[in-house]
Amino acid sequence: MASDEEIAVGIHSVFEALAAGEKVRRVVIARHRERDAAMRPIVEEAKRRGVAVEVKPESWFRQFGSARHQHVAAEMPAFAYAPWDELRKRAAAAADGLIVVADHLEDPQNLGSIMRAAEGAGAQGVVIPDRRSAAVTAATRRSAAGAASYLPVARVPNVVRALEDLKAGGFWISGLTAAPNSVSYTDIDFRGRSALVVGAEGKGLSRLVAEHCDHLIHIPMGGKVASLNAAAACSVVLFEAVRQRTKSL
Amino acid sequence: MASDEEIAVGIHSVFEALAAGEKVRRVVIARHRERDAAMRPIVEEAKRRGVAVEVKPESWFRQFGSARHQHVAAEMPAFAYAPWDELRKRAAAAADGLIVVADHLEDPQNLGSIMRAAEGAGAQGVVIPDRRSAAVTAATRRSAAGAASYLPVARVPNVVRALEDLKAGGFWISGLTAAPNSVSYTDIDFRGRSALVVGAEGKGLSRLVAEHCDHLIHIPMGGKVASLNAAAACSVVLFEAVRQRTKSL
Repeated sequence: MASDEEIAVGIHSVFEALAAGEKVRRVVIARHRERDAAMRPIVEEAKRRGVAVEVKPESWFRQFGSARHQHVAAEMPAFAYAPWDELRKRAAAAADGLIVVADHLEDPQNLGSIMRAAEGAGAQGVVIPDRRSAAVTAATRRSAAGAASYLPVARVPNVVRALEDLKAGGFWISGLTAAPNSVSYTDIDFRGRSALVVGAEGKGLSRLVAEHCDHLIHIPMGGKVASLNAAAACSVVLFEAVRQRTKSL
Repeated sequence: MASDEEIAVGIHSVFEALAAGEKVRRVVIARHRERDAAMRPIVEEAKRRGVAVEVKPESWFRQFGSARHQHVAAEMPAFAYAPWDELRKRAAAAADGLIVVADHLEDPQNLGSIMRAAEGAGAQGVVIPDRRSAAVTAATRRSAAGAASYLPVARVPNVVRALEDLKAGGFWISGLTAAPNSVSYTDIDFRGRSALVVGAEGKGLSRLVAEHCDHLIHIPMGGKVASLNAAAACSVVLFEAVRQRTKSL
């Protein structure tokens, strides 16, 4: 595949890419599953959208290794990431710059919900690590509900370095955590340049990233569950920032 | 199946039910797919958890009609809903009662995220309609991350009637919407008994439900996307209520 291409694999992902209106170049199905009932919705949706369906031998799917491809794939243009230098300069130019740093998320849909919330909160962009992290896939774009078309997402080789860049640009860094040495997010002043760091589902922030935050914050829980979903938590804090920025405290 | 049973169908749902630790009674796979590579993770996970895997003829799966069952199913105990009368009385007994009404959500995972946020915000429970709505499935329980074990969920035949019950119990009803005649959620006083109504993804509140709200509220968006995901929006408003209840305004 060309480097500007992305391949979605698996019945669900391929169907979602078609249904979400992604610019799918072609759908590929293994010969022995061509008439499988499970493929029917994909073939019908591809037809409806004028997308070519090609049949390939089973060996074609070996390129996906152990991924759960179910012998179906869709090729589409890859997401165009923003250069980090551009994004951080644009964000630092705004007196109320707002950046979300997603530190090694696993779930592409969570990343999409975070992008949707960040765009809705007026953030300049989202930063993700370029390895061991959910990337912007078709599932992400679908869950971002349009935000992927407007919101710059930058991939960086080193999250700690990106935080240092942000600090140099006048940003205050708040890291969402469940650690006991953290303060309630409602006690933080989010006016002025702010960056919010959200950790991986279940794992939270890495030690090094936590050490590079100006504040460690948590959302006080009133029940028995320990935390919110990463995207929900991110939304809660981002819109507290918006509230503070648009009202007197 | 017994009325206290729930059947998850499809490769993804069955695997998730097993992986989430649901009390799966048995997994059923159609004979012709028994050795299918796609079933392997399910068979292995069932083995690891000591769950029986039974092989049935393809005709056994006809009971699921047009559902995307992929010839695999998992039987498990159904979620135990709370009686509405009990839930509303318990909520009304609290001076700061908090209830979420999910009006015809479609996505079981969204319902799970809403349950997680409601439990985390200290709400007494969630209300859903008993028809044309996502129910509490294995996918819901997984996305609720434990909240399903603690938070009462009541199913009601008529959402409008439930809102009237809540009003009679001293609740103020806020309906989340994108309608122009609504006010910002930050302008509402959520102290005292509050119910938050969240509408279906994409569609929002039905006209009749909107008419029964005391306030129609929206979350002001600072970008180009029109709204947040239903669960994210619900989380933002619930934790604004928590903020108001725990701090001076």
